[in-house]
Amino acid sequence: MLESISLSQYELVYNAFSFTVAVMGAATAFLFLNRGQVAPVYRTAISISGLVTLIAMYHYVRIASSWAEAFTVGNGQIATSGIGFNDAYRYVDWLLTVPLLLIELILVMKLSRSETFAKATKLGFLAALMVVLGYPGEISTDAGTRWLWWSLSMIPFLVIVYDLFFGLKQSIDSQPEGARGLVSAARWVTVVSWMFYPIVFTLPMIGLTGGGATTAVQVGYTIADIVAKAGFGVLIYMIAVRKSEAEPDFAMSSAAPLQAKPSTT
Amino acid sequence: MLESISLSQYELVYNAFSFTVAVMGAATAFLFLNRGQVAPVYRTAISISGLVTLIAMYHYVRIASSWAEAFTVGNGQIATSGIGFNDAYRYVDWLLTVPLLLIELILVMKLSRSETFAKATKLGFLAALMVVLGYPGEISTDAGTRWLWWSLSMIPFLVIVYDLFFGLKQSIDSQPEGARGLVSAARWVTVVSWMFYPIVFTLPMIGLTGGGATTAVQVGYTIADIVAKAGFGVLIYMIAVRKSEAEPDFAMSSAAPLQAKPSTT
Repeated sequence: MLESISLSQYELVYNAFSFTVAVMGAATAFLFLNRGQVAPVYRTAISISGLVTLIAMYHYVRIASSWAEAFTVGNGQIATSGIGFNDAYRYVDWLLTVPLLLIELILVMKLSRSETFAKATKLGFLAALMVVLGYPGEISTDAGTRWLWWSLSMIPFLVIVYDLFFGLKQSIDSQPEGARGLVSAARWVTVVSWMFYPIVFTLPMIGLTGGGATTAVQVGYTIADIVAKAGFGVLIYMIAVRKSEAEPDFAMSSAAPLQAKPSTT
Repeated sequence: MLESISLSQYELVYNAFSFTVAVMGAATAFLFLNRGQVAPVYRTAISISGLVTLIAMYHYVRIASSWAEAFTVGNGQIATSGIGFNDAYRYVDWLLTVPLLLIELILVMKLSRSETFAKATKLGFLAALMVVLGYPGEISTDAGTRWLWWSLSMIPFLVIVYDLFFGLKQSIDSQPEGARGLVSAARWVTVVSWMFYPIVFTLPMIGLTGGGATTAVQVGYTIADIVAKAGFGVLIYMIAVRKSEAEPDFAMSSAAPLQAKPSTT
């Protein structure tokens, strides 16, 4: 499929990758720097959000290099170099980051210790399984093989979605009022941004071919990664800030964020 | 246009890019290190100032490499290598940093939460629109096409300038007296340094041609970026330091900057 990429498609994809390196790097710096702005109980969630964007930044540096190496560009012409584009970087990235994204969400909800452990283990395992089952389909060009693995991968995906919507419903109702809307939004961002991946995966199977299909898949995954990792990380940070305001000890300390007013009693 | 670059023009541009990597890296380190010197309420503004210079440093590393790859230099001779210079790095950078620069300014003003959100959303969106509308003109060599997109891009630009001058007037009058002059200066630095960009953009359309035009555009954008990002970031830091002195709780704590005198009551 790389043979049919035009120079402008090549440049669009390359610039999208480079943009994502910058976004993930900036998100990482923001999350690590502002970790101290939230109450100690939420700092692990913020650290993990930053780890996700850090891991993604690393992989986008590699993905951009691999993309550039797969082509020979000169005098307004483009040809494949013979070196393949390494699609596995994305799956290696997701294998690490997708379970961490679910753990972020669970940690910021501040469930009981045993519930946190049980949910994190279950959802983390399902997320890893989902990624592993998608990979054999991704590297296949046969539509039947792609649909098979896509369907298998959708099973853990749907279990996760079900669990986020119904399993966590009760926990959301017990969130402090100021944060409930944001926690619910985080759940929605997870589900909607994750929907992108199985949809983008099917683009080559539903009629898109050649350079257009490759470009759409690469740009589509990139947009999904930005929303699901950097956007989601900032949302988790906002939830943690709001919930920290509801923590009386933290709100009174000097490290409290903007709105906190010490109410001396 | 790259064909007509002389060796000394090539070197001037390359050295300007390398200089900017150093300036942006140093500004990032300064802002991140000194974040704790300001009251907690201003730390997000300082973090974002550092993110802007960090993102710019990344792009100037890429821009310098792309510039070097676009030419073959040896034995005092210069020729184009056939690999194009990637102009898109600048636009990708601006797409991220220009909205963040406006958010810095809004955050350091410490408006109400709803006003902060409304202003940041509106100005951030307009800034991104301004950058996106400029790009089709930048990659065109046709003067008519360049003027068309330049004009379209100027519409959000003028709305932002109007909003900075009139929409924020009231907020500036409510700043603490010691910081009012600096906040007003930050507004001016934004408008004046941003003026550079549309002026530099028009250089190839008003008679400058060949290597001279390319050199003037690249060096011009570079100077504008240094003023608008690193210079502006330091100004935001100075404002935050001044305003922190007016925060009674912070000024009395040990983390206060030099001038703070605890007034025991």
